Amino acid sequence: DNETLKRALVGCMWAVTAGVVLKLCKFVKKAWELGVNDPRKFIHCLKVGVALSSVSLFYYLKPLYDGVGGNAMWAIMTVVVVFEYTAGATICKTVNRICGTSLAGFLAIGVHWVASRAGDQLEPVIVGVSLFLLASAATFSRFIPTIKARFDYGALIFILTFSLVSVSGYRVDELLVMAQYRMSTILIGSSLCIIVSMILCPVWAGQELYVLVTGNLDKLANSLQGCVTQYFDCTEAPEAENEEETRKQLLGYKCVLSSKATEESMANLARWEPAHGRFNFRHPWSQYVKIGASMRSCASCIDALIGCINSDNETSDDMKRNMSSISMKVGTNSARVIRELATTIRNMKKSSKVDILVTEMNSAAQELRNFLNSYPNMLSPSSQNNAKDTQTEAASSSDDDDDVAAKREIPLIEIIQVVTVASLLIETVTRVEGIVEA
Amino acid sequence: DNETLKRALVGCMWAVTAGVVLKLCKFVKKAWELGVNDPRKFIHCLKVGVALSSVSLFYYLKPLYDGVGGNAMWAIMTVVVVFEYTAGATICKTVNRICGTSLAGFLAIGVHWVASRAGDQLEPVIVGVSLFLLASAATFSRFIPTIKARFDYGALIFILTFSLVSVSGYRVDELLVMAQYRMSTILIGSSLCIIVSMILCPVWAGQELYVLVTGNLDKLANSLQGCVTQYFDCTEAPEAENEEETRKQLLGYKCVLSSKATEESMANLARWEPAHGRFNFRHPWSQYVKIGASMRSCASCIDALIGCINSDNETSDDMKRNMSSISMKVGTNSARVIRELATTIRNMKKSSKVDILVTEMNSAAQELRNFLNSYPNMLSPSSQNNAKDTQTEAASSSDDDDDVAAKREIPLIEIIQVVTVASLLIETVTRVEGIVEA
Repeated sequence: DNETLKRALVGCMWAVTAGVVLKLCKFVKKAWELGVNDPRKFIHCLKVGVALSSVSLFYYLKPLYDGVGGNAMWAIMTVVVVFEYTAGATICKTVNRICGTSLAGFLAIGVHWVASRAGDQLEPVIVGVSLFLLASAATFSRFIPTIKARFDYGALIFILTFSLVSVSGYRVDELLVMAQYRMSTILIGSSLCIIVSMILCPVWAGQELYVLVTGNLDKLANSLQGCVTQYFDCTEAPEAENEEETRKQLLGYKCVLSSKATEESMANLARWEPAHGRFNFRHPWSQYVKIGASMRSCASCIDALIGCINSDNETSDDMKRNMSSISMKVGTNSARVIRELATTIRNMKKSSKVDILVTEMNSAAQELRNFLNSYPNMLSPSSQNNAKDTQTEAASSSDDDDDVAAKREIPLIEIIQVVTVASLLIETVTRVEGIVEA
Repeated sequence: DNETLKRALVGCMWAVTAGVVLKLCKFVKKAWELGVNDPRKFIHCLKVGVALSSVSLFYYLKPLYDGVGGNAMWAIMTVVVVFEYTAGATICKTVNRICGTSLAGFLAIGVHWVASRAGDQLEPVIVGVSLFLLASAATFSRFIPTIKARFDYGALIFILTFSLVSVSGYRVDELLVMAQYRMSTILIGSSLCIIVSMILCPVWAGQELYVLVTGNLDKLANSLQGCVTQYFDCTEAPEAENEEETRKQLLGYKCVLSSKATEESMANLARWEPAHGRFNFRHPWSQYVKIGASMRSCASCIDALIGCINSDNETSDDMKRNMSSISMKVGTNSARVIRELATTIRNMKKSSKVDILVTEMNSAAQELRNFLNSYPNMLSPSSQNNAKDTQTEAASSSDDDDDVAAKREIPLIEIIQVVTVASLLIETVTRVEGIVEA
């Protein structure tokens, strides 16, 4: 009995170990896939390794160690804390760190000088009170949105340095020498970080933002076209192989909806980057954020549209067939406009094609409106066809006409709404083009 | 001439100074308002001051300083870096810091022991290679989403400690003693942070999340009701005084749309918090994120609806009047349901009122559908009134009926869609209730 118990126990332990190993394997496999999908992540890891190893030479090489001594620690710390994935983030943190450190260092030395004149009794009081006040003020400044966006890290470093310097000034004698060593090691660490992150396969926040925005435009176009096609094109049964892909395309607009935070932080970081590739120093990054906002409003329209389509509606097939070609045309045309916009941003020059496509899209929408206006005429005499010719008016008037005209087909109304938003989007973006060019 | 030039220069300088001072004043005023609106921010700043001042006692009091010496620096550093606005974030960072430090410390000492056996020539090579490998691996782990959400800071600290300990082990002799001191000072700093952040007016991430979600539900209800009222209730001209407020209410749904990132991070932090107030230790925080997602889909519907209303549509006033009472009812009822849900979550117990209100809302929606079904009958004979009685079916079928029935009125169609989403929301939330109760 004891023997069987033992065996059972051993078996149990083996099972648990195997389970853990299996889970670990799965985890590692998943992580590996993450890296394979984006090899730059691997490269980033190697870059961190390179930066750290080279900064640790300060400990290994005798002449270097004699130069800075134990303060080499600060260089290592700087590298670890400051090194970020994108070059923009690294530069931002470096600038923040250097500014915060030097400002706090000067202030702390000033306070220390004042305090040391005030006598032994008062010294800790003065230092303590100033520490309390400045730390509170700096903490508060981190709540202010404009500072939070750009100098959050700098404020943190300010508090850190000020408290370290002012407090240790009470015990350490050669404060100035220490501050000088620390400052120089931090500078060494920072410059190393900037060099490594900008020279070895740099990842630019601006480039990332640009890829994200153009990719999102494409996704939006695919979603729009996909859902219109899916709804009206019921004749061909989608093949099982394609189905997964189509479903993915359809859900592309969700990425657009959820990419707000990423876009904003990227645009913030991109501002710190020097000119690189095809981007100038004063590239209008904030325009990307605006395009993103327009895209999101467009995506929320598509969301509503897809919600409508997915509810099992019982429209007559007859009606559907009547509408199908014309509304497919609207869908395709607006998708084409969005795609062309993506290309325009990609090439960063105004293409004349956009205008042509916009006109085409608007005429398609107008056709749909006319169709809808004529259709109910068979049923009711109320048709207020006030066709307008200017582009924006045509877009914004699409709703008016349809208020009267749209009967029978919710999805169509939604499509036209999407067209409206798309036109607004186009307006924004054509305005952007001029700036991107400049 | 020289005199006038001088005067002009002085005047110019005064003007510039005055401008800067004015700007600074404005900035300070804005910041002050930020604090007055949420006094807890002031309190947080004072808390940081208190924590820093008390940890700096290690320098001022001779017996304490003799105990830890220059390592007191690490206690200060811990306080500055770890102290966050919410208690959850502080605890999360503390745990991360302690785990990361101890794990890295043990590993580094192990590597150092191995390297020191290997001889003087090999020692830096072994340390360097292990540093390179571990730093790369830890950096890579920060890309993995599950680790990023919870242990991002821990991984950073792991790299920092490992590199500091393993590298300085090459120069410092009494590595173990140093590690012990540092560990103890970090522990002191951490516990001080936790105590201060949890005892002095704590700000709980869970509480914040809870207030945010219930507030957002209210905003959603206000937006929904506001836009329906604005559209149909054209008789009274809104007073100038109220207008600003109404507009604010209308835009409330935008907050809902953009609060995704906040909600997720809050839910993540809330998990670290101990039981407090009315929240148990295993409070289902992830449910709040789900409610947030439902709210967002609801808000994007309202967005589409408002977009429809704002386009200057030319519906006949006659029609509008016919619809107004019934659609106001739908709007009011759904707003009431959302508000009741907010109350339910606020009280954290299932209220029977929700069910009643849901039934009311559904019957109102049904009424609207019936109206729409009957209305076009005056124009066309195609009415497929397949009224369903079960609650969810009624909700999901609203679109079907309207595909056929909805004529003349885009906004109404949208309203019904909102109702659909609202019902879905209700479904989610009623499911949640059971868990919140438990």
